[in-house]
This record gives sequence, C-alpha cells and structure tokens, in this order.
Amino acid sequence: MAIYEKTIEKQVEELSTSKDYLAVAISLAQEFATTAVERDKAGGTPKYERDRIRDSGLLHLIIPKQYGGIGESWILAMKIAREFAKVDASIAHVYSYHHLGLTIPHIFGSPAQKERFYVETVKRNWFWCNALNPLDRRTILVPDGENFRLHGKKSFCSGSKDSDMMPVTAVYPETSELIALAIPSQREGITIHDDWDNMGQRQTDSGSVSFDRVRIFPEEIFGGRSSANEPFKTFRACLTQLNFTNIYLGIAAGAYDAAREYTRAFTRPWLNSGVESAADDPYILQHYGDMWVDLQAATCLTDKAGELLQATWELGSSMPAEQRGECAVAIATAKVAATKVGLEITSRIFEAMGARATAGQYGFDRYWRNLRTFTLHDPVAYKVRAIGDWALNGKYPDPSFYS
Amino acid sequence: MAIYEKTIEKQVEELSTSKDYLAVAISLAQEFATTAVERDKAGGTPKYERDRIRDSGLLHLIIPKQYGGIGESWILAMKIAREFAKVDASIAHVYSYHHLGLTIPHIFGSPAQKERFYVETVKRNWFWCNALNPLDRRTILVPDGENFRLHGKKSFCSGSKDSDMMPVTAVYPETSELIALAIPSQREGITIHDDWDNMGQRQTDSGSVSFDRVRIFPEEIFGGRSSANEPFKTFRACLTQLNFTNIYLGIAAGAYDAAREYTRAFTRPWLNSGVESAADDPYILQHYGDMWVDLQAATCLTDKAGELLQATWELGSSMPAEQRGECAVAIATAKVAATKVGLEITSRIFEAMGARATAGQYGFDRYWRNLRTFTLHDPVAYKVRAIGDWALNGKYPDPSFYS
Amino acid sequence: MAIYEKTIEKQVEELSTSKDYLAVAISLAQEFATTAVERDKAGGTPKYERDRIRDSGLLHLIIPKQYGGIGESWILAMKIAREFAKVDASIAHVYSYHHLGLTIPHIFGSPAQKERFYVETVKRNWFWCNALNPLDRRTILVPDGENFRLHGKKSFCSGSKDSDMMPVTAVYPETSELIALAIPSQREGITIHDDWDNMGQRQTDSGSVSFDRVRIFPEEIFGGRSSANEPFKTFRACLTQLNFTNIYLGIAAGAYDAAREYTRAFTRPWLNSGVESAADDPYILQHYGDMWVDLQAATCLTDKAGELLQATWELGSSMPAEQRGECAVAIATAKVAATKVGLEITSRIFEAMGARATAGQYGFDRYWRNLRTFTLHDPVAYKVRAIGDWALNGKYPDPSFYS
Amino acid sequence: MAIYEKTIEKQVEELSTSKDYLAVAISLAQEFATTAVERDKAGGTPKYERDRIRDSGLLHLIIPKQYGGIGESWILAMKIAREFAKVDASIAHVYSYHHLGLTIPHIFGSPAQKERFYVETVKRNWFWCNALNPLDRRTILVPDGENFRLHGKKSFCSGSKDSDMMPVTAVYPETSELIALAIPSQREGITIHDDWDNMGQRQTDSGSVSFDRVRIFPEEIFGGRSSANEPFKTFRACLTQLNFTNIYLGIAAGAYDAAREYTRAFTRPWLNSGVESAADDPYILQHYGDMWVDLQAATCLTDKAGELLQATWELGSSMPAEQRGECAVAIATAKVAATKVGLEITSRIFEAMGARATAGQYGFDRYWRNLRTFTLHDPVAYKVRAIGDWALNGKYPDPSFYS
Repeated sequence: MAIYEKTIEKQVEELSTSKDYLAVAISLAQEFATTAVERDKAGGTPKYERDRIRDSGLLHLIIPKQYGGIGESWILAMKIAREFAKVDASIAHVYSYHHLGLTIPHIFGSPAQKERFYVETVKRNWFWCNALNPLDRRTILVPDGENFRLHGKKSFCSGSKDSDMMPVTAVYPETSELIALAIPSQREGITIHDDWDNMGQRQTDSGSVSFDRVRIFPEEIFGGRSSANEPFKTFRACLTQLNFTNIYLGIAAGAYDAAREYTRAFTRPWLNSGVESAADDPYILQHYGDMWVDLQAATCLTDKAGELLQATWELGSSMPAEQRGECAVAIATAKVAATKVGLEITSRIFEAMGARATAGQYGFDRYWRNLRTFTLHDPVAYKVRAIGDWALNGKYPDPSFYS
Repeated sequence: MAIYEKTIEKQVEELSTSKDYLAVAISLAQEFATTAVERDKAGGTPKYERDRIRDSGLLHLIIPKQYGGIGESWILAMKIAREFAKVDASIAHVYSYHHLGLTIPHIFGSPAQKERFYVETVKRNWFWCNALNPLDRRTILVPDGENFRLHGKKSFCSGSKDSDMMPVTAVYPETSELIALAIPSQREGITIHDDWDNMGQRQTDSGSVSFDRVRIFPEEIFGGRSSANEPFKTFRACLTQLNFTNIYLGIAAGAYDAAREYTRAFTRPWLNSGVESAADDPYILQHYGDMWVDLQAATCLTDKAGELLQATWELGSSMPAEQRGECAVAIATAKVAATKVGLEITSRIFEAMGARATAGQYGFDRYWRNLRTFTLHDPVAYKVRAIGDWALNGKYPDPSFYS
Repeated sequence: MAIYEKTIEKQVEELSTSKDYLAVAISLAQEFATTAVERDKAGGTPKYERDRIRDSGLLHLIIPKQYGGIGESWILAMKIAREFAKVDASIAHVYSYHHLGLTIPHIFGSPAQKERFYVETVKRNWFWCNALNPLDRRTILVPDGENFRLHGKKSFCSGSKDSDMMPVTAVYPETSELIALAIPSQREGITIHDDWDNMGQRQTDSGSVSFDRVRIFPEEIFGGRSSANEPFKTFRACLTQLNFTNIYLGIAAGAYDAAREYTRAFTRPWLNSGVESAADDPYILQHYGDMWVDLQAATCLTDKAGELLQATWELGSSMPAEQRGECAVAIATAKVAATKVGLEITSRIFEAMGARATAGQYGFDRYWRNLRTFTLHDPVAYKVRAIGDWALNGKYPDPSFYS
Repeated sequence: MAIYEKTIEKQVEELSTSKDYLAVAISLAQEFATTAVERDKAGGTPKYERDRIRDSGLLHLIIPKQYGGIGESWILAMKIAREFAKVDASIAHVYSYHHLGLTIPHIFGSPAQKERFYVETVKRNWFWCNALNPLDRRTILVPDGENFRLHGKKSFCSGSKDSDMMPVTAVYPETSELIALAIPSQREGITIHDDWDNMGQRQTDSGSVSFDRVRIFPEEIFGGRSSANEPFKTFRACLTQLNFTNIYLGIAAGAYDAAREYTRAFTRPWLNSGVESAADDPYILQHYGDMWVDLQAATCLTDKAGELLQATWELGSSMPAEQRGECAVAIATAKVAATKVGLEITSRIFEAMGARATAGQYGFDRYWRNLRTFTLHDPVAYKVRAIGDWALNGKYPDPSFYS
C-alpha cells in the first residue's frame, strides 16, 4: 500500500511534534492487523492489545502537559483512531472512548475534579471506558449518609471489561436529572456482564453492567447544573460524533486499502473482459475511481471538521453558542458523508476483488459488519434532518446527547 | 408477516396442481428457519435439513412424469428456491443445484442417458450436487481401456458433501475440450474436502473435490459435440442464472420480511422524532416504501423471466436461437435488478430496525453476507455490459457458461 | 429503433381487437414527432395535432360500445398515451386528461348523466379537458333560481384551450363541499387564460380559467354524495395516477429510444477509449445496460398495475375497498419507479450521446423538462410514504384526490 | 441567502488583499442575476455584461503585477467564476476562458511573447476567447513567405463573438503537429458564425469560426516544441479542468441558493404532511440536508484542489511531473464530485420546491440545462477511469488536452 503510506508519511512530517505518537500508533496497528480476523471471530476482550496500548503511552495523548500528559490535540487523537480503525475498528472504538471518558471530569466537573482525574489517569495509566448511555435510565443514584449509592443496570457499556475507570450516568430520583460520575471499574458491587455478542464491533465489550448498591463518593460526582446551558458543557456530543466519524472513515479506508492490495495480488480478469490483467479492467478501474472520489470527499469533510472541533474545544468555557453550532453542523456533515461512503465502499470492494475474496481467512466482511453496526449508534436520517434544518432554516442543531 | 403469507396463499391457489409442493416447501422453510442462525455460525453440512428435503419428495419435482417424477415446472422449482432462500440461502443453493445437476444428462446426454438418470434419480432419491466449475480446468479425463479415468481437482463444488450424484466437467487432453459427466459422489478415488469456510453461503459445502484416477464408464459421459451449437445445448446457463436470481430475490425478501417483523415488534421511535411509534416515523416509512418498490420491481422482472424460461425450456431441441437470446436478456435483466435491489435492502434494513438489531442472536447480517457472497458468482458489471450490447446494438448475449 | 418497434408489434398482435387503434396512435405519434421540438419551443396549443386526434376517432376509445364508443380498455388507452409521450408528452397529457374528464359523469353522476355525456361525447366528438384542481378552492357554485352560477378562478386547467367540454370542481359555500360538474368550454362567462408558460409540458395549456357568473344547469352537476364512501366514487385518483405513470414511462422510453438512435448514428468513441466505435465503449454499453434494466423494471410494474386497474374498474360500484387498496398500492409502486427511473434516464442519456447532443435542433432536454415538470404533480416523497405505510403497517392508502 | 453571504464575507476577510475584486465580482453577479433568465431564453452574446466585466478591471486579475496586472491567484479567479456561475453560467464560462486564453502565450510561448501578450492585454483591456478545440483538426497553418496563413474551420469556440483576442490551434500539415497561436478576433478573413443554439450555456457563443487564408505573423505562433514534455507545458489542461469544476460547483450552489429562497418564500406544506409549514416537512428537510452534505463535499474537494493548483502553477517551468500528477488527480477528483453532485442537485431542487416552481418566469431549469451541457465537455466516465488508474495502479493521468 505504498501510496497510502506515503500520504501518512506526509502527515507525519506535517505534524512534526506529533510524529512519534502517530508512528507508534501505526506500528501498533500493523501489529493488531495480524490477529484482527481471528479476534473478530472470537469476540471478547482484546486484552493483549489493550495492554499494548497501555504500554505505548497513547492513553495520555490529549491530557494537557500541565497535568503530566502529552498535550496533543483531538486532531491527532482522531487520526490515530482512524489508523486503528483501518485494521481493527473495535480497538479504535475502545481507544476513542478512553479519550471521551477521561474528558468527562474536565467538561462536567470542577477545576479540582478536572485536575485530579487528569493527574490520576496519567499516574495510574488508567484505561477509561463508557457507561453513559443516556437513553438507558435504569440506573439511579441515591444519597446514603455523606455519600451515595449507585444501583441499577446500564446497556451498551463499551470497553467496560478490562477498563480501569468507568464514567456513568445515573438518574437522581428526586429531580429526575441525569447525573454524570466516574468510578473505578473494579469497585465492589459492579458486575460487568459478558453479554456483548453482536454482528460487528465484536471486541468492544459493549455489553451491560450492573450496579448493586455501589458506594459513590461526592468527589466522584460531577455537578455544574447551574451552567448546564453553557455551550462547553454540551460539547461532548460533538467530540463523540467526530470520533465516531473518524472511525467510520478509518473502516472505509481500511476496506479500500485491503481491497486494493487484494485486487493487485489476486484478482483475475474476467473471461470476456478482453484485458490481460484485472488492473486494466474498465469496470474495476471504475470501482476504484468511484471509491477514491468518495473516500477523498469524506476525508476532506472529516479533516475540516476536525480542525474546527479542535479550535472550538480550545475555547473551553468561553465557547460561543454560534461556534458550537457551526462545529456541530460540520461534524454532522462529515458523519453523514462517512456513513454513506463507508457503507458503499465496504460492500463495493467485493465487486473489485471477485468471488474468491469471500474466503473466511480474509475476513473482508468485517469492514461492513463493523461499520453497519457502529453507524446505527444514532439514526443517520435524523442527522440529515438536523443538517437540513440548518441548511434551510438556519437553525443550529439543538445540543443533545447526539448533536 | 400476514401480508406476505397472503400473497403466497394466493400463489398457491393459482397454482392449483402445484399446491401441495409449495405448501410442503413453505412448511420445510419454517422448520429450517428455527435453526438457520446457529447453522450459519457453524457452517458445514445441513445434513438433517437435506434429509428432510429428501423425505419430502421435492427432489423429483421437475422430473417428467413419464420417468416417475412429479413433472412440475421450473417456475415452481424456482418459487420453492425463493421460499427456502428467505430463511436459509444455503439450503436454497444446494436445492437449486440439485435440479441444475439432474438436468445435465437431459441437456448434454443421449435420450437413453436422459431417461436413465431421470429414472434412477427418482428410484434412488438421489440428491445431486455441482462440480462443473468451467473456469477450473485442473481435472482431466483420460482413456483407460474401454473406460476412462478422471484425475485432478475442482473448486467451488457446491453441495458435494452428503450428495449422491456429482456432475463434473473435465478437460479431454487430446482436444482440450471440456466434457461433462456424472458419477456417484461416493465412488472410490473421490475426496470431498471440508474446505469451504467463507463469509456467506456457509452451509453450501462449496469447497474443493479431488479425483484420484477415478474410474469413469462411457455411459457416464455426455457427448453430443456435433450439436454443440444447438441453442438447447447452451441453455443450462440460463437455468443457472435464473435459479440464482430467484435465490438473490428470496434473500432480499427474507431480509425485508424479517426487518418488518422486527420493526413492528421492537423498534423504538427516535428521541426527537415527534412520533409515538416507530411505525409512524417518516423516515422508517420511507425505508419500507423504497424497499417495497425495489422488491416489487425485481420480483416482477424475475417472474416474467421465469415464464419465458419455462416456455423456452419446453421447446427443447427445437429452441430457436432468437428465443434463447430473448430469454437470456430477460434473465440477465432480472439478475442485475435482483443483485442491486438485494444488496441495497440487506444493508438498509438495519436503518429501519435500529442499533439493537445487530445482536448476534438475530443473525440479520447473514442476509447481506449470503447475498454479497453469492452475487459474486460472475461479475454483475459484465452482465450489465451484455445487456447494454443488446440494448444498444441488438446483439444477444453469446451463449457461454455464464449467459 | 427496430427493437422497440418489434416489441410494439408483439403487443399489437396480442391485442388483436385493439390492433387498429394502437397502429393509428403510433402513426399519429410519428407525425407529431416531426414537429415536437419546434412546438416545445413555441408553447401554446397544439391545435393541428388535437384536430388530428379528433379525426382519428381515438377520443371515443374507452366509451362503452352501448353508447356508441369503441369500448376499449384503460390498458389500451394508457398504452396509447405512452406512445404519444415517447415523442410529445404534452399531447399525451391532454389526450389522457380527455379520458379522465369524460369518465367524471360515469363515476360521479347518475346513470342518466353517464349515458348522456358518453353519448354526446361520441356524437359531437368532444375533446375534454381538466379544471378539477381540488387544491384550488377559489371557484364557488351558488344557486340561482332553478339553476346555478359558477364564479371564481381555477389553476392548472390542462387542455382547456381548444377543448369542448370542461369538468370543474367548485365549492358549495353552504356546505363547503367540493362539487364536480361539467360544462361546454365555450359557455358565456368562461375565460381561458393564455398563462401557461412553464419549463416543461409546454403545450398542455395548463394555465388558469376564470368563471364569471357562468350559468350551470342542474343536469350538469354530479351528485351522489350519499355514496361518497363507495370505493368506485374514489377511483378516479387511481385512473389519474396510472395515466400519469404511463406518460412518465413513455417520456423515459422516448428519451431512451432517441438516445439509442443518436449514439448509433453520431456518437464518436472517446480519445483514449481504445475502441473503434462508440457502440463498443465499455461505459456507453454500461449506460445502455443500466437504462434498459431500469426501464424494464418500471415497465413491468406499470403493465402489471394496468391489468389490475382495468379489472378493478370493471367491477364498477361493486368494487371492494380492499381491491381498490391493492390497486392503489400497485399504481403508487409503478409511479414511484417510473419517476425515479425516468428522471435518471432523461439525464443520463446525454452521457451516452456526448456533447454534441446538446444542440438545440435535437431538443433532447425536453424529455427531462417534461418529466421534471410533470412528476411534481404530487410529491413522490408522500407516495413513497404511503407505500411504506402499506408495506410496514398493512394500511391501504386513504382514498384522496392523489391516491 | 444570509447564510451563504456570510461565508462569502468570511472568505473576503481571509483574502484581505483580494477583498475588492471578489466584492466587485459579487456585485456584478447580482446585477447579471436580474436579467439571467431572459438572456438564457434569448441566447446570443451578453454584450452589455461583457462590457461591464471589461469596465470592472477583472480581466487583468491574474496577470502578474510586473506586466501591469493585478497579480492575483487562480484561487481568486476561480472563486469569482463560481460566483458568476451561481447566477449565470454563460458569463462564468466566457470569463474563465478569458483567463485560460491569456495564459497561452505564458505557457507555450517565449518569455518575450509572454510579456508582450500580458502587457497588451492590460493596455488594451482585451477580452480573450477560445478557439483551441484540439479534437477539431480542420484548421491548418501553412507558410506564406515570411509569414503564415490560417485556413479552415473550428468548432466550439466559446466566447468568440465580441472577443478581442482569439487563441487557436492549427495543424501544421508537414508535421501533422497541432500548433497554438493567438490573433486579434477581428482580423480579416475570420468569420465568427452565429451558430451556437444549444440547450444550455446559451450565451457562451460556443459556435464555429471560419478562417479564410488569415494572415499570421511569426510572433503570434507559440513554439517550444523542444520542451513539449515539460510538465508546465501540459499544465493548461489542469487549469481548464479546475476552472470548469468551479463553474459546475457554482451552478450547483446557485441552484441550491435559489431553491432555498423559493422554498422559504413560496412552498406550501403537502396536504397530509401534518406540518404547518414546508420548512418543517421531514422530506423537504431531508432534501436540504442531503444537498448540503453533497455540496460541502464537492466544495471541500474543489477548494483543496485549488490550493494545490495554485502552488503547482507557481512552480512554473520547474514543476515536477509528480506534482503535476498529484494536482491532476486532485482536480479530476473534484471534477467528478462536482459533476455528480451538481446533476443531482439541479434536478432535486424541484422536489424541495414543488410544482409551481416550474413556471417559466423563474427559469430554474437553466441550472440543469447549463450543467448537463457543460459537464459533457469530456466524458466523466473516463475521468473516473483515470482516477481509478491512479487509485489502483498508482499511475498519474497522462498529460493530455483533458487531463
């Protein structure tokens, strides 16, 4: 895949200070690639690979230097997620959720909480997961003396198995409010169920977690309700959506790369094609031409949204609602494009490779299965609608868990 | 799925004489459906299901009454394949290949061979398979005294495991001609390898078969080279292509049916959809409306091609080249439509069902995996090109293994 | 266009009794074709062509024999509309509206009214038009002694210029009910405005009509409100929608035919195509292959809906609601398919012809302009939604002016 | 269209030095918009508008300051073409060809020729046209003493009427070579025919020109055959292709803007839509959402290609073949995207506006007619193929008249 690598090399050069981390990630991705097909079949937890990421230092990537972190940008974090997703979308998924998890205290907490969780994450090399699913309101938080108790169940808890820290949302019964908190994943009363066995994203451990009167300390609960309407407090949805977009794009790019390598190595010209080599077949060239155009389009939109996201993130609590809106539109636009393009490419590659590419050893169907699964996180039709409301009526998306 | 069943009921009524066989097939399909997801995961041979088909009498369906068969049409045989494909495309696959196999002696053999193989198939309730792959020329047929020996290897031998009869093509080295023959699958020297492990059509046993100097008797070899240009001698490609089309269509219809049932039972309206029920969601209605239109279009073309195919088949050796050409165009048209529509539907259903429909227990990804795998049998781009040559230049498709 | 004509020939054979009328229509269409491009530019009324239709006897086509008509089916009437639409969609439009107009007394009137208007239409060779637009409620009907007065304005009155009879809907102020009536187009107080100048369907005179206290006699008003919920009373929407569908399909088929003729005669192979003739270009063949498949699909659905429509029409007042529903779904399905396919083909033909085909003398853009205009009659998105409501929820379309 | 203008405003701010010229262009565009519909109908030469451009100084935009020009970039020139194209694609067309014409001496000529033509263009405020069509080899250049004679005919000579300078290609019979030259459009022996009457780009005067033994002086002929393989000498195709892309994109953006304004002002909610305003209709929002995403994607790719084009142009004769290749791929990618997106949007807008938007007074069909015409300049299928050859095989497009 000389061509694609060259592009990466260029990116690495451009990101001079970031060079090492992207190189580290690409190296890890190459390693993960060798077992990705069999791990997709097996499902479960990519324990070895998670530990490799732990060892790499990449878990500290976006933590500001003042807290001992690397101080890199979301731009690089998402590029790395894209690289992982090219070969293993499950690892990209849990890696992204780590970053999305560890920013919870920053976004929703006090300055002291932000500091404490950043510092501890570096010090203890925590791997964060996600138990926030806001549509699942079965978990409650009740006072218990000076502390609290967490009780109930939560679904779609990505990366929970083998995680160190777990951000959770819980309903506070008195006010029906949804409250964010973060606790060690191993705390007594927490049971992480081994019940994720889906058709895609099979090593994300996105199953359910039960909480049996789990003790919660006040400093683990993030407040700031008074500033709930502050744009920065609603910005995590933007981070989540663009992290996903980068993973979608990575899956599509990975499918494209793999197909290209396969076509060049193995595909035979069709009987009556009149060409000597599949690489000269007019329809195979058309497939690659169309896929290239689509992939460039989605990449261009995603990169552009990434720059806007980073600039907006850096504004912190001074973020204007309008800029948050512009950013949300740019992200939604990239996400819709990556979804459409990705679903098309992960199916179309087979026409560019031929029947023998369906052999189980290649695992080429995992791109489609992973993307088909992950793109259902929230309905693309409502993303298009929200963009339409902007495009026609000039209305920014309402800040929500999904926009 | 009351609506669809009603349609079937109607079809059953219309096909008064055929009523029992379609009903039998639907009943078998319902039985196969209960284990289809787990068998898809397991791969291997659907031995129990194949025996259920053996017991049902459906293996004699298209064998003329004069030879002890049921004397039904390809129209019914393909409708049954479609019903099987709705729930289990592997079974539809081996069931179709049975019919395509047992007609080999009829098409390529002498009247005596035609009679003998028809009669024996009924008498011994043979289940035929397929080892014809004409692109794989590694198997040779050499004289050995009064008899012959078959030696070499063949790939993509669908339904070979647990089959009783195996039609094979072999190269006759002196003339480089490809010769068709049929032999018992259990004959000494035949090894059926357990090497089919692909991403779709997982219970078709489409792996490889080795022939180690297998003894072949003259009456097992089908001749008629003198009449090789007779349209009827080239008609098997038409039969194959339309059988496939019906399976593609069945997969699409099965995906649609399953999605409809799921949406009605489980899908929740989206957060800000403003509707009480997913069944009222404007975009979910759009998905079903679009899928319905596409499915009707492919069905209409496939049914129309089926009628033409049956009428053409009945002409036997008096089949005019022009009618074979019209038939090939109609079949190609239906196949292209079913391919496009099916690939679209088997992916789009997920957007009409939502994220929870990716749970492994449902196995909803198998529709796409099966269809994506099977539609690569021969490239759809060259099918479109052949249709274009007809549409623009008035040229019928050249009779070949694939058209 | 030998191929297409052959198909027509076949149809003619099948419709043995209808042979002459279809032949007459095809002959007229060939005549109209010679001036279609210039008349499209000019707009206005195709007076000469309307008179040629008057002379041909085709205005009596579907009037039952007992009233002096030809007694032909809607199937033939719509096939003829399709033939006209291939070369001139405006003429197809006014020709279809003639039939849709003259059935108003049959559907909404008493047996005596039905008889009288059928008989008079034959006797006086009336050309009917359409001033029914139910969305435009600016015209009122008020009592005036023993008679009534019609006053107001009506938009989108297709075929009004040069028409003999005009069916109108008017609001009856006391009840707010919309009432259908039919009057001679030349009656005092009627002004047909020359204000139709749209981008397509330019010779349909679909402008506005003013009514200045026009005298209306009781026998010109169709009643039967007591049976308003009778399915037959709501069936005209089905007739309208399928007549339109046939015109859409005819436009698409006409565009395809014209492009095919042009490509064969004039299109040059591209510089680096490596082929001697455009007819061998892989991408041009792909265009024709894809267009053929799409056209066959839409044709198949439209023909099938036509048969169901005719059978349902023949049930008259004994028409069951369920059959009306099945028919409405089949028509909507065909209409959505013809709309999509037609819009695609009328734009795609240019890629199969090349840059020189944009010369004004050919007028090849009129296919797209006509179809783009006419397919906006009612929104295709709501047609898809209605189909979705059937497909998902088993609900027939609510009988309305549009379904 | 407040939203779009804001974006423009931003662009203007970013391009601080360019501010005045873009503002001038937008102001001219607004002026041209008021007569665009009627001029589209009339066809012919937009003489008044061409003179307004002459008066504006924009003809000197990209001429380097050292020759008296403004010294602006292709980036700005193409942005201006895009603005013109939003309201009048014919003017954008002749405006782009002016720039493409005046760079002929720079690219193909000697330093002295480059200087002379640049200087004269500024001094005399020449408006250049295009008579280069390399596929039309009917014009020959023959020696005539110390000078030459030009004889023959040339098709597709955009902007020739009312032009001041005409670049021409002619065959030199002795060598069959195609030679570029530039002459005053009014020179004796040149006849500009009024024979452009096509369905789109109607005011581009892209008709034919005859040359009747026109005297040519040596200094009007551009040589440099010795360096024909120098990448810079082949770069004009890149300039042309990206200028076109910007016009395609401008047409699409103009259609979108116009539709948005119309929908907001005039579109009524559909009967059974259940919404009060068309702006809340779920399917209309979907149309705008999808169109927005597509438009952003094409814009992103086009802007990115523009930056690469400008950087590559600035390398002049030191341009490496590899960079020219990268640039050609980026331009082809943008062009394919803009073509697809534009054809989709210029047709889809009608579904977002409704039937009344087909009234002739709006002229909304001109977007599609213009784009459909102009995108046939060279076949998009071969552009996709060239991209595929890069994507699959790593081959840069062969430098040619079209890539």
